[in-house]
Formats: sequence, structure tokens, C-alpha cells
Amino acid sequence: MKVVYSEKHQSHDPQTFLVRGRMTRSAEQPERADRLLAGIHAGGHTLVAPEDFGPGPRAAVHTPEYLEFLETAWARWQALPDASDEVIANVRPMTGYASYPTGIVGRAGYHMADSGTPVGQGTWNAAVWAAHSAVHAAALVAEGERVAYALCRPPGHHAYADKAGGFCFLSNTAIAAEWLTRRRRRVAVLDVDVHHGNGTQGIFYRRPDVLTVSLHADPAEFYPYFVGYAAERGEGDGLGYNLNLPLALGTADDGYLQALDIALARIRAFAADTLVVALGLDAYEGDPLKGLAITTPGFARIAQAIAGLKLPTVLVQEGGYLAPELGDNIRSFLTGFESRL
Amino acid sequence: MKVVYSEKHQSHDPQTFLVRGRMTRSAEQPERADRLLAGIHAGGHTLVAPEDFGPGPRAAVHTPEYLEFLETAWARWQALPDASDEVIANVRPMTGYASYPTGIVGRAGYHMADSGTPVGQGTWNAAVWAAHSAVHAAALVAEGERVAYALCRPPGHHAYADKAGGFCFLSNTAIAAEWLTRRRRRVAVLDVDVHHGNGTQGIFYRRPDVLTVSLHADPAEFYPYFVGYAAERGEGDGLGYNLNLPLALGTADDGYLQALDIALARIRAFAADTLVVALGLDAYEGDPLKGLAITTPGFARIAQAIAGLKLPTVLVQEGGYLAPELGDNIRSFLTGFESRL
Repeated sequence: MKVVYSEKHQSHDPQTFLVRGRMTRSAEQPERADRLLAGIHAGGHTLVAPEDFGPGPRAAVHTPEYLEFLETAWARWQALPDASDEVIANVRPMTGYASYPTGIVGRAGYHMADSGTPVGQGTWNAAVWAAHSAVHAAALVAEGERVAYALCRPPGHHAYADKAGGFCFLSNTAIAAEWLTRRRRRVAVLDVDVHHGNGTQGIFYRRPDVLTVSLHADPAEFYPYFVGYAAERGEGDGLGYNLNLPLALGTADDGYLQALDIALARIRAFAADTLVVALGLDAYEGDPLKGLAITTPGFARIAQAIAGLKLPTVLVQEGGYLAPELGDNIRSFLTGFESRL
Repeated sequence: MKVVYSEKHQSHDPQTFLVRGRMTRSAEQPERADRLLAGIHAGGHTLVAPEDFGPGPRAAVHTPEYLEFLETAWARWQALPDASDEVIANVRPMTGYASYPTGIVGRAGYHMADSGTPVGQGTWNAAVWAAHSAVHAAALVAEGERVAYALCRPPGHHAYADKAGGFCFLSNTAIAAEWLTRRRRRVAVLDVDVHHGNGTQGIFYRRPDVLTVSLHADPAEFYPYFVGYAAERGEGDGLGYNLNLPLALGTADDGYLQALDIALARIRAFAADTLVVALGLDAYEGDPLKGLAITTPGFARIAQAIAGLKLPTVLVQEGGYLAPELGDNIRSFLTGFESRL
């Protein structure tokens, strides 16, 4: 399988993550990519460097204000007195009629969903190339590859059209899906990350042309807490085009695969002709941020079930943190997928 | 003038305040009350301890979910692994369809507007007695006092019906205003804190029976950043019953008094029969959180202008931080007010 990967992710190395009131080191570290690459090399896959697709694909998903913020925030933040090295939001809008402030502290609060998504000097460049990687994988599939995998870092599925969150800045998955949609593909997004794909859902929530489906740990006690519930089915024209399948904390392979069958049936009913998978590996039983209990062989079973859709498929890396088995898990998934081609 | 004050505020001593990405000590310290008391003693005013008005007045303004959260959050937080001593939010809802999570991390994110409003062991008790103090001052005015002052700590005007923010937990000002409204008073709220009274505005935003007016530093580059703009005039039945007068950063006495004239004209047009003043002193030129440049004599002039409305008036302490002149400023305001009775 072709694997699109850029070393430019290394310029994003977030240091801060406010967890239960304490500042810790972010779990979204560059070493994640090293471990994933080890699994990819062991699986015999082919690395491809992404092309530069320009600003168009990201501008098709994210607002101009937000993109300008991401590109300029770090430099503006450095001009503040006594500021931290990384941009970290403190405040947030609380009302539907929130205006857009001019100062960088206010803008950080507007565009950042949590205090765990700091913007450092190299964040923008890394995020841009992660998005190019996702588009490149989509282009490979558009050109006839049955499946391609984008090893994106930072991840993207918690990023909204105008907000960063949960380690995510640009929504790589949504950018790939939108890029394909504009090329007349009928796209379904399937999110198997342990966390609800809230950003992807938000981006397509009022649209019937892209189906969004997410399996994830029940948000009642798990990030992103406020959305990801089964009652969220889309709004307006998009009503019925979003499916959430929250799972009890600790759900293991068999329970997961049962829910996955429901997701796959919905994708078939939508008559998708192309699939984008938001491929988190943090549903792993040994993941540092775990909420579910998928085994390493379980990822192969999940991949086989997804491959059974027989759809051209773009795999976009999302979460999955520094477990020793992270490389084994991506290898298991990719091998499982290829076994059903 | 009668000054309602409870020593119980001392149990709230917040340690953390995330400012420009760095954890600092909160500016909302118990010593604020000591300095205010020194000014009050120097002015020859009379201290009164608040009565316990029970849960009714706060429940008339805040949601049951939020009140339960405030009362129980600290104990629930202590049960988390590796949690900080104070409850500090990391996440936040980003969509209009936010659900209400069950876990305390999610609930903290739901109910807390920023990372500068930590809940400690004694926060609830202090907030409850601050609210009782405001109601007690309102009761004094309802019983015939021309003016009464509640030395509330923690402050309240950034707290919404269901959210803490900006050092505030229970909206003392709104609780006093609502208590009076339910006793057939026609109440106007005038907020002279340097920060927009966003919580008070939010609580009454859809109601025509309480007029809310706020003078404050322009939020485009100043807390609360997202609201406090002139375009916000109320919603639904409340349209036209909210007036924001944002002032350029650095505005001094004369410019302030010109804007105050506009505020007072609106209050007269509303035909209020009772006034509640959200009395921040952080518009002071030497305040640590300053945005405007009011002088100590300027507070007397502001108070004289307000007293010129000739309305029964409840003064509720809001912001004003550890400047050496904090006591002088409250003395100046109260003396100025009494000079026009």
C-alpha cells in the first residue's frame, strides 16, 4: 500500500497539555510517527512524499479567519509581555452572539477549543503538510489506487471549520473528503478513533452530500464530552447524514465489530462510492488515552470488515499514542485491509 | 452608609490563573477585601453581617445543574487520579447542540468559561455568602435605605446562569436585581467595572423587565473579548433592554463621565425605580488589570453622577484588584455618592 508521509511533521512538538488542572507534556509527540513508520516498514509498504496542493484544499474546509489565525498566532503571541512559548487559550466565547476580537488572546480563545492544542513556532507548517498528505492520498485513490494511507501528524478530526481542539489544527480527514466531493465522488467518512470525530461532524453537519459516521467511547465521561451522542443526526439539509455510535468504556473487539456492522450498513445505504477512514489507533487496549479495549489482532478484523465494503478508500491517520505496540497496530490494520482487497 | 460584609469570603483563596499561557496566582485574593474594609472604616461606614436568605435567591438566577456543580465540584475533582487541588477546566463545548456530560472533567468544561476561575474547597461557601450579602443590601434598600453597599467576594458579574468565569461564580448583582424584581421593583443594573458585565447581560438578555447597562473597556482587546460590543442590544422580548458602552482603552475621567451620561439617560428613560450598581473599581488608572484610567477623585465624580438619578440604590462590589489605592477608591466612591443624597 502507498503511504504518504512528510518529515515536516517534526516541526510540531507541543510541550503543554492541561490535564485535570496540571500542565503536562502533550501526548501528541513526534515519536508517534516514528513508531507508526516502524510498523509500516515492517509491513513492506511504500513511502510517498506529498506534493504541495496549495491553499485551496484547506480553504475549502476552514474559514479564512481561522487559517490566518493559525498561520500568524505564534508570532503575534510572542509579542505579548510575559507570554508562554506556545499559544494556549484561557478564555472562550459563551454565547451564540460572540463577536470576533482583534487581540491575539481573544482570538486564541475564539479559535481554540481547549488548552491541550498549543500552537508552537512550527505548528502551522506541520499542519499544512499533514493536510497535503491527506489530499495526496485522496488523489492517489482518485487516480485509481484501491487504497492509500496518509500518515498525518498533527491529527485533524477534532478541528472544526474555525477551531482547533484535541491536538488537531487542520481537519485532514475533512479536507480529503471535501477534495474528493468536489471531484464528484460520493464520500462517506468513517471515524474509528477512540474519540468522537467532532470536528468532522461539525464541518459536514448541515450537508447531505457527505455522510459522517463515528464509533467512539461514550462521551459522557470521555473527550470530547459535549458531542458524540447518538441523538446527533445532523441539522437542516444534513439531518440523517450523521451517525454516532457511542460505545461503553472498555468495549473490546467483539462489541466493537457489532457496532461497526451498523456503521457499514449505513454507509452502504448511503451508496457511497468512496470511503475516507479517520484512522485512530487509540481504541487500543494499551493506549495511554484509552477508552476502549481493542487488541492488536482486533485492528486487523476491523480493517477487514471495512475493506469488505469494496470501496476505494483513503486512510487518514488520527490519534493513537505512545504505546509500545503502536507500530504493531498500524501494521495489523493495513495488513488486515490488504487481505480483503 | 450600611456596608454588608461577611468574613466567610476568606475561604475562597484561588491560587491559579492561566495568563498568556502561564500559570500565575489569581488576582482575586482575600486581601482585596481587607483593603476595601480599610477604606470603609476610614469613611466611617457601618458594617452589617448578612443574614442567610436560603437557596431561593440564587436559584432564581442560576440553573439547578450549575448550582449542584458548584457545590460538589471540588469533592468530585479530588477523586480523580493526579488531579490538581483546584478545579480548572480544560475543555469546552463548541456547538449549539452541546450535551451535558456526567463526568466531572466534562462538567467543569461545561460550567467554566475560562481557566481563571478555579473552584477550591471553600469556594462554594464564600460564593453563597457573597450572594447573601448582595441580597441583604437589596433588602435594606427595599426596607427604605436610600443606598446600601455589599462588599461581595468573590465577585459575580461574569457569571452566567450556568457558567462561572472571570473570577465569578454566583452573580451577586443579578441575584440582588432579581430579588428586587420579584418584589415589584423596576430595576436597572448599571455596571461600572472595567470589564463588561457579560454574565449579568446574559442572565437578563431576553427580558424587558430588567434593564442592563455596562460601561467598560472595549472588548476587542480586553476581557471578556467576545461580548460587550455596542451591537448587543438584547434578544427577543429583551431587545432594546441592554446597552453596552465600550470605551477606548485608556479612557480617563472626562471621557468616562460623558459615556456615563448616556447610560444614565437610558436608565431614566426606562423609568427604573431601583438601581443596582455593579461596582468594580478596576477602571482605576493604577489597577493591576487596568484597561481605563479613572483617578481616585474620578470615582467620586462617577458616584455623584449616579446618585443624581435619585434612585434607591444597591451597590454590589465587583472587581478592583491589589492596587495600594483600592481602599481610597472605594472611600472616594461612597463619599461621593453620599454627597449627593
